Amino acid sequence: MLIVLRPDSTREQRQRLVRVLEQAGLAVGISQAGPRTLLDVTGAIGPLRDLAVDRFAGVERVIPLEIPYPLASRATQPEDTSFAIGAARFGGNGLTIIAGPCAVEDGDVLVEIARAARAAGAQVLRGGAFKPRTTPYHFQGLGEAGLRMLRDAGHDAGLAVVTEAMDTRHIGLVAEYADMIQIGSRNMQNYALLKAVAETGMPVLLKRGRACTVEEWLCAAEYLLAGGNRNVALCERGLVSFDAAVRNHLDLSCVPLVKRLSHLPVIVDPSHGTGRSELVPAMARAAVAAGADGVMVEIHPNPEEARSDARQAVHPDELAQLVPDLVAIHEITRKTILSG
Amino acid sequence: MLIVLRPDSTREQRQRLVRVLEQAGLAVGISQAGPRTLLDVTGAIGPLRDLAVDRFAGVERVIPLEIPYPLASRATQPEDTSFAIGAARFGGNGLTIIAGPCAVEDGDVLVEIARAARAAGAQVLRGGAFKPRTTPYHFQGLGEAGLRMLRDAGHDAGLAVVTEAMDTRHIGLVAEYADMIQIGSRNMQNYALLKAVAETGMPVLLKRGRACTVEEWLCAAEYLLAGGNRNVALCERGLVSFDAAVRNHLDLSCVPLVKRLSHLPVIVDPSHGTGRSELVPAMARAAVAAGADGVMVEIHPNPEEARSDARQAVHPDELAQLVPDLVAIHEITRKTILSG
Amino acid sequence: MLIVLRPDSTREQRQRLVRVLEQAGLAVGISQAGPRTLLDVTGAIGPLRDLAVDRFAGVERVIPLEIPYPLASRATQPEDTSFAIGAARFGGNGLTIIAGPCAVEDGDVLVEIARAARAAGAQVLRGGAFKPRTTPYHFQGLGEAGLRMLRDAGHDAGLAVVTEAMDTRHIGLVAEYADMIQIGSRNMQNYALLKAVAETGMPVLLKRGRACTVEEWLCAAEYLLAGGNRNVALCERGLVSFDAAVRNHLDLSCVPLVKRLSHLPVIVDPSHGTGRSELVPAMARAAVAAGADGVMVEIHPNPEEARSDARQAVHPDELAQLVPDLVAIHEITRKTILSG
Amino acid sequence: MLIVLRPDSTREQRQRLVRVLEQAGLAVGISQAGPRTLLDVTGAIGPLRDLAVDRFAGVERVIPLEIPYPLASRATQPEDTSFAIGAARFGGNGLTIIAGPCAVEDGDVLVEIARAARAAGAQVLRGGAFKPRTTPYHFQGLGEAGLRMLRDAGHDAGLAVVTEAMDTRHIGLVAEYADMIQIGSRNMQNYALLKAVAETGMPVLLKRGRACTVEEWLCAAEYLLAGGNRNVALCERGLVSFDAAVRNHLDLSCVPLVKRLSHLPVIVDPSHGTGRSELVPAMARAAVAAGADGVMVEIHPNPEEARSDARQAVHPDELAQLVPDLVAIHEITRKTILSG
Repeated sequence: MLIVLRPDSTREQRQRLVRVLEQAGLAVGISQAGPRTLLDVTGAIGPLRDLAVDRFAGVERVIPLEIPYPLASRATQPEDTSFAIGAARFGGNGLTIIAGPCAVEDGDVLVEIARAARAAGAQVLRGGAFKPRTTPYHFQGLGEAGLRMLRDAGHDAGLAVVTEAMDTRHIGLVAEYADMIQIGSRNMQNYALLKAVAETGMPVLLKRGRACTVEEWLCAAEYLLAGGNRNVALCERGLVSFDAAVRNHLDLSCVPLVKRLSHLPVIVDPSHGTGRSELVPAMARAAVAAGADGVMVEIHPNPEEARSDARQAVHPDELAQLVPDLVAIHEITRKTILSG
Repeated sequence: MLIVLRPDSTREQRQRLVRVLEQAGLAVGISQAGPRTLLDVTGAIGPLRDLAVDRFAGVERVIPLEIPYPLASRATQPEDTSFAIGAARFGGNGLTIIAGPCAVEDGDVLVEIARAARAAGAQVLRGGAFKPRTTPYHFQGLGEAGLRMLRDAGHDAGLAVVTEAMDTRHIGLVAEYADMIQIGSRNMQNYALLKAVAETGMPVLLKRGRACTVEEWLCAAEYLLAGGNRNVALCERGLVSFDAAVRNHLDLSCVPLVKRLSHLPVIVDPSHGTGRSELVPAMARAAVAAGADGVMVEIHPNPEEARSDARQAVHPDELAQLVPDLVAIHEITRKTILSG
Repeated sequence: MLIVLRPDSTREQRQRLVRVLEQAGLAVGISQAGPRTLLDVTGAIGPLRDLAVDRFAGVERVIPLEIPYPLASRATQPEDTSFAIGAARFGGNGLTIIAGPCAVEDGDVLVEIARAARAAGAQVLRGGAFKPRTTPYHFQGLGEAGLRMLRDAGHDAGLAVVTEAMDTRHIGLVAEYADMIQIGSRNMQNYALLKAVAETGMPVLLKRGRACTVEEWLCAAEYLLAGGNRNVALCERGLVSFDAAVRNHLDLSCVPLVKRLSHLPVIVDPSHGTGRSELVPAMARAAVAAGADGVMVEIHPNPEEARSDARQAVHPDELAQLVPDLVAIHEITRKTILSG
Repeated sequence: MLIVLRPDSTREQRQRLVRVLEQAGLAVGISQAGPRTLLDVTGAIGPLRDLAVDRFAGVERVIPLEIPYPLASRATQPEDTSFAIGAARFGGNGLTIIAGPCAVEDGDVLVEIARAARAAGAQVLRGGAFKPRTTPYHFQGLGEAGLRMLRDAGHDAGLAVVTEAMDTRHIGLVAEYADMIQIGSRNMQNYALLKAVAETGMPVLLKRGRACTVEEWLCAAEYLLAGGNRNVALCERGLVSFDAAVRNHLDLSCVPLVKRLSHLPVIVDPSHGTGRSELVPAMARAAVAAGADGVMVEIHPNPEEARSDARQAVHPDELAQLVPDLVAIHEITRKTILSG
């Protein structure tokens, strides 16, 4: 942290500030370079962030320089995080394909979807049993019955399953049925949920909030990592959009950015990320070209019958046509990254 | 809901669509006005929203016309919602002043703040015991000890207290100590939390998410109202900003907008809403001039010592100078609304 | 400008950087405070901004500290800018009321509007003769004929007139008829236009771009001031919105912010700022309560007949009812600012 | 356009509205489907857009259905627009590579850059002679001298040249030296400039404004097409971002979206689109994977020496490594689109 003092700051103000910083266990270097007096403060992140330094008399500006997510940072761990769930490998050289319906609605349809997903090249089945819906009048998910259907369909097709937990009280239940727990976009900053999910030790798919910066996202991952859980994958799913033509603005630039800042795998969800099924294949290709470790795609054999977000689901046949493109693009991208 | 059919839609497509709509219990009017065939669909919100009508063959566009938050809507309840908590009245002709520190940190300081808040004209004391912080290394709040300090300081000063609940597992605890439960901005769409808080029957202060539309906000309130809890107040606290000069963009236009759309009281938080203490008094005045039912202002006698968001806290003396302005502006605004 | 060097930067890299900075006429202070080497660079804004310092080998981060708009800055000119146009005073203790139709469409209607505006308390008449419209099929304005109608209606009612210039080739024409030239929101960063308007020496109303930061806005004003034109007023008119419920998000927090950063007067346009006439009175009151030096309100006696933006126009009678509120709130706000 | 009437609208109100619509040359179909009365209005875009129908008494809501950019719409012209500039083909099956410095600064360096661009596989040289800079103290471009250097370097390397026009008064000059005129992001809604550029008949590269919707962008293109100029290419260059980690949020979902809505070619500028050179190669690959017809990349042999936006320029060697990837991805994408 750099502190720029006001030109008219007094000696007493400076001494008081240095005293408080040192009492918090921080190291303070004082420099007088040109017209400005600067304090260069180093130490643990907790006190660096908690002290309201810019409210001290005599302070002109405070510039945080330390990384607020040390465990998630590539500066701390240069090699990629990589972990397996069933046949899927998140991170490393793998290309993870997650597919499935938005919500679990019917056991038989789900089995059909799971088999089609597997046939198309997916390794993981998605589907919500607890659904965060905009109004209380929308379908809220089947709860435990849905979890059971999801697990059974996954077993049947040989796919690992990922599903969302929305409530600290249901985490045990979700952990019982799923192979990976999803933190939804609306709950990215639900820190009570993050802490409780971290305790399960299960792999986590952490979706980005629609108005959260990359730093806030990595700080949310830090809650999971600091809880002792290292198997965390990030998932970009679109930012708040001022253009009604798309439901969200899918931010693919976050993929190479996160790859530089962090060692965690990054998955992209072009279904929620655009909200329009006709844009999903192009954006899935673009995601892999941007360097993503995988994609999560909503599929449904008959979108007319789906009760949640059908607008963004593609047919399993479209996924089957898409996957070879993704593999080919991944090949190109990997080669570049390895040689680059 | 209006459904515009494609010019090339077939008779079979139309019949199939009408059949599905009617099976869902909806009434369908068919009209052929000019070149387009339109379906005018009415009925319960659940099926209206859950059917993915725009995925049906032959459909060009779907235009939702129904209000998705009937209980929160002024169309359903024309008169203002108004309720009392201690000496404070939310809604109606009252002007509610909520003040206090961002986080509860020290019992003695809190008593001092509460007395100053009361002297300045506040009726409600705020302060966080469970804090949603960006990293796990920030101060996370004192938990139950903080709740006890808050209740005691409120009792001492004769103020009702409001504090945030972040986890469904802590709602009972918060309800035991507080007079009003706050749903924080990051949890506005934490629907598990909304449902659980609704069950307590306690008054709720529902902050707006920083990237949520007014409709999404009223739909979140609908979760509380549908849970049987009518004592809900809304709180605007700033939207995501592309301008680093302010922490958030305080959206005051939502105040007259919500007043037209809903009967619920609206409070404005200019402290989080700007993130800069020097802008707080002007924006508090503006909030009341826009028609807000009250303001929530962070105060601290010595911001240098606060551990959370001190940058946005004003001194109690500033609040004491501000309140008479707010009362005078409220007088002008009320007069206009009554005669308008 | 502060430059933080990388811990592994070499002596040669540092020497090269210092040499380039000094060759550009900048003063460089070097400090070694704690683990980091810092360069504190001062001098003229041109070279400070033009050098791509962060691309130099060995540089970790560059932190600009200098104000990029010295002429617009309150640090350079502590006292408020204030100037008169006819009976209107922009800045100082005045409260400027600008009113009129969106576009000039009919001479007789305009005379009627101007008289009503004057009767309601306005000092300036607005109206567009050159209109920036989203498609080429929208009404594009009456051009010189419209300018003449505007001037005549202003004369008739005793009001100064302000109108937009959109093209450097038309500035002479606009200057001939108007008392003040408006730079529209879409042209805030049309620097060719800013330079050419500056040369006229005429008072300018500079609207903020809908996705421009306060700093970018003040830098646009700097183009006018650097061109020798000191009679500049700023006008906030709403930011890009992700919520379809309002056309724009009116940013009132910019008012107290600009008042601290700059000496220029700030006007607020709640008509474009919300796009909904029913929100205009509340937001006009809020603007004045936030400290604005005036408001610009679209009025029309018969909005059904207007061809441009009628959705946001209020009736002259509404303006007449509103102005006394604005005066009363202005009184409260001024008193506070004078004593504060 | 659909007009939904209020349930309590009167016969007189309806008749008056229909009369006004018909007087404007529009056809009106009246339907009574279910509880609502609807007007289905068709005709020319001008009157459809100019009438402020939602201000008429008795109107509840107006839903525009017509496409406001008929000439740019794929509904009007199903086949892709495609045109050649020198060796470059915009649209069709080509992959256009535009490269060059942000600003033209030095003739010799520019010749070096142009040769390197050509060697790397580019067909078009870019470079600004008139620069829209945030403050008047930034380097403003070399003007005609810069245009001459650009043309000469293009000739020397066998590249067509594209450069920005910022002022209607300079269009003739730019047209004299350039093969294609760029409309910059800040001027996307500078309609005077669009009209004047259209008149030259020269190919145009129309950048998207950083807070403009896809519809607004296509409407800006409509100004060019309506002016008789068919050789228009669109260029996405990033949207306003709330995340300081990137300068802009590059919106790649606009690529497949525009391809559906319009026949115009789409180029992507990942340099301005991210503002960070280290993200440029990944985002260029992603752009082509999303279906873009080409990319525009800023290059500089020695970014330390560039005076404008050096932060986002890549070295020509990086471009040379990148182009084969782009060609390979383009091959995959084309195959899919042709078979899809």
